[in-house]
Amino acid sequence: PASRLPQLGVTVFSVMSALAQQHQAVNLGQGFPDFEGDPALLDAVNDAMRAGHNQYPPMPGVPALRQAIAAKVEALYGHAYHPDTEITVTAGATQAILTALLAVVHPGDEVVVLEPAYDSYAPNIALAGGTMVPVPLDPTTFRPDFDRIRAALTPRTRALMINSPHNPSGAVWSADELRQLAALLDGTDVLVISDEVYEHMVYDGGQHQSVSRLPELAARSFVVSSFGKTYHVTGWKVGYVTAPAPLMAEFRKVHQYNVFTVNSAMQHGIAAYMRDPAPYLGLSDFYQRKRDRFRAGLAGSAFALRPCPGSYFQSVDYGGLPGHLAAMNDMDLCQWLTREIGVAAIPLSAFYTGGSAAQVIRFCFAKKDETLDLALERLKTIG
Amino acid sequence: PASRLPQLGVTVFSVMSALAQQHQAVNLGQGFPDFEGDPALLDAVNDAMRAGHNQYPPMPGVPALRQAIAAKVEALYGHAYHPDTEITVTAGATQAILTALLAVVHPGDEVVVLEPAYDSYAPNIALAGGTMVPVPLDPTTFRPDFDRIRAALTPRTRALMINSPHNPSGAVWSADELRQLAALLDGTDVLVISDEVYEHMVYDGGQHQSVSRLPELAARSFVVSSFGKTYHVTGWKVGYVTAPAPLMAEFRKVHQYNVFTVNSAMQHGIAAYMRDPAPYLGLSDFYQRKRDRFRAGLAGSAFALRPCPGSYFQSVDYGGLPGHLAAMNDMDLCQWLTREIGVAAIPLSAFYTGGSAAQVIRFCFAKKDETLDLALERLKTIG
Ligand SMILES: CSCCC(=O)C(=O)O
Ligand SMILES: CSCCC(=O)C(=O)O
Repeated sequence: PASRLPQLGVTVFSVMSALAQQHQAVNLGQGFPDFEGDPALLDAVNDAMRAGHNQYPPMPGVPALRQAIAAKVEALYGHAYHPDTEITVTAGATQAILTALLAVVHPGDEVVVLEPAYDSYAPNIALAGGTMVPVPLDPTTFRPDFDRIRAALTPRTRALMINSPHNPSGAVWSADELRQLAALLDGTDVLVISDEVYEHMVYDGGQHQSVSRLPELAARSFVVSSFGKTYHVTGWKVGYVTAPAPLMAEFRKVHQYNVFTVNSAMQHGIAAYMRDPAPYLGLSDFYQRKRDRFRAGLAGSAFALRPCPGSYFQSVDYGGLPGHLAAMNDMDLCQWLTREIGVAAIPLSAFYTGGSAAQVIRFCFAKKDETLDLALERLKTIG
Repeated sequence: PASRLPQLGVTVFSVMSALAQQHQAVNLGQGFPDFEGDPALLDAVNDAMRAGHNQYPPMPGVPALRQAIAAKVEALYGHAYHPDTEITVTAGATQAILTALLAVVHPGDEVVVLEPAYDSYAPNIALAGGTMVPVPLDPTTFRPDFDRIRAALTPRTRALMINSPHNPSGAVWSADELRQLAALLDGTDVLVISDEVYEHMVYDGGQHQSVSRLPELAARSFVVSSFGKTYHVTGWKVGYVTAPAPLMAEFRKVHQYNVFTVNSAMQHGIAAYMRDPAPYLGLSDFYQRKRDRFRAGLAGSAFALRPCPGSYFQSVDYGGLPGHLAAMNDMDLCQWLTREIGVAAIPLSAFYTGGSAAQVIRFCFAKKDETLDLALERLKTIG
């Protein structure tokens, strides 16, 4: 019988991680750290298990964790979400995004996505019965083009998906762009799904501009974040979503019949660990050093560095590589790099529903310094 | 804007657990144990965390866990699922069921459900764009009526959902019923989604009849199970699904864009713990003693015990209670029991999309003996 998602293969992140493993390559592809989370966090989870937090927690999440999230968001972005009705803990950010779409998109509704975009958005929209309307970001700066967004809105537009700091480009929205978005949506009933999983990775003194900073945007938005990204435990699959109560009520109707709730021991452990803000407040400094190390290592190579104001991804242009390499498409080049050079990367075309001819690939620098150094050593053998 | 699931409230299990907490009632409602999982299992998870299993595991699950599942299923039911292509670890059974439906149901497809049924099935089908076609089980024995199932099949029937041991009734399919189902579906392309989360709770020498026992059924089935139920850790949210490779490929297309994967430390810990089959092989004996204790306590009361050949739920008929209580509908009675008697239960009508006039409520006996005794003491004060 026919497939629901006939075009779809295995996500590029799984494909490249498997290839990296097969060729013993340094894996700068899939976005996850190769170092460990804080032992204090592991202790907190173990304590929670031993304290008996092993049965169903409340469907929206453990109260202590929702309170800790509320306190953090209010302290950083000035918006007071109510923990009882406006915050839900999720099994990672992807589950949050699919659940939000299933909750609000009716068959035939349109969802505007700024491309390049994380590869789950398009299938998520399709599963909700919606139609994805891609709007390109500026191909060089990856900034939103508000005229193009405005032109893409129709009476059928149900939601707009945005992502800052941006995967794959690292672009970070400015406060002014946030205001422009608010003005553009004023008077419409378009919802916003804002993927902010890299919220604590913004460099060079920049600031994360959460949509929850602007009340008029927060009132129409699901804001999604990830403890896996923030606390170096991507395998735990714990994230969260905030939204005004009426939207959150719809979200929870779906959430309760998707995962129902999220691992109780992990939730309690994270709640305890969140009492100290230092780990997330220090994350930008931590990753900026890694970004700088990686960029310094590539400086003077045939890879042209794109700006990296946020996220833990560094995009590079490979048009300056020797001709036979520059002639490859980005997926072929990533496979070649993995097999022949021993460094895995992700092709930017994976973030475009219609493909992309740009000669850009993405490296993840959330790695030990020695891992980055080994990758750099290998990359410098090219050409 | 309009709700995607306008009829839906908060699941009855959350409602009754909250009410139980509010009134300090003994909670025999929501199905979870009030005792702890094996310390050896908690140790195994902690060991996995300390060993560094905290980043994204492979999307379908940790290989060691998929191999352990394959070995168990083959040993118990004689079907050899390939761990690489036919087994996926899920964030609980509910996520497995929603994901299977999203993967195979096309808008307008029909899905036959035997009622009473777990309350997630109907909204899951709706979210997949399908139409639920309820077929009643026998109202007294809760056995499937194959003539009625046959009559419900149409060219639009995409799947049939079954559940044995059955929640809420505890009914267990016989080997002969499984063969009848196989014969009935022969020549159709109807898929089966078989919810077998209580597979290790079958009493009085009975045997769980997994659909994977019959090759012709296994070839068209998703079979769903739950480590939360089996290992007394419902809050961990780890389950799994098996299916033939072509169906599993479709499942994984959706799974990778729902939760992507499942908590790595929990998966590694469970894989290690599964080396010893004693915990699941001994589970029926363990729960049979609790069932017998609970039934003995209610014998001679005004509650009429229904049979309980499997699951950890005991259904009772309350028609024999004093008139003003017998006159209540089952939801009202459950609330009254929680508030006035201090024992929470679940109304059977919650398992019928069209409601139910039957005077039956469900108690969960997955509780410490002293919890059961306290509940019995309170229940016996009635009338
Ligand atoms: C879920 S695997 C992908 C991780 C990630 O966010 C990325 O590499 O972009
Ligand atoms: C996810 S809460 C419901 C638990 C359960 O399976 C039941 O009580 O029937």
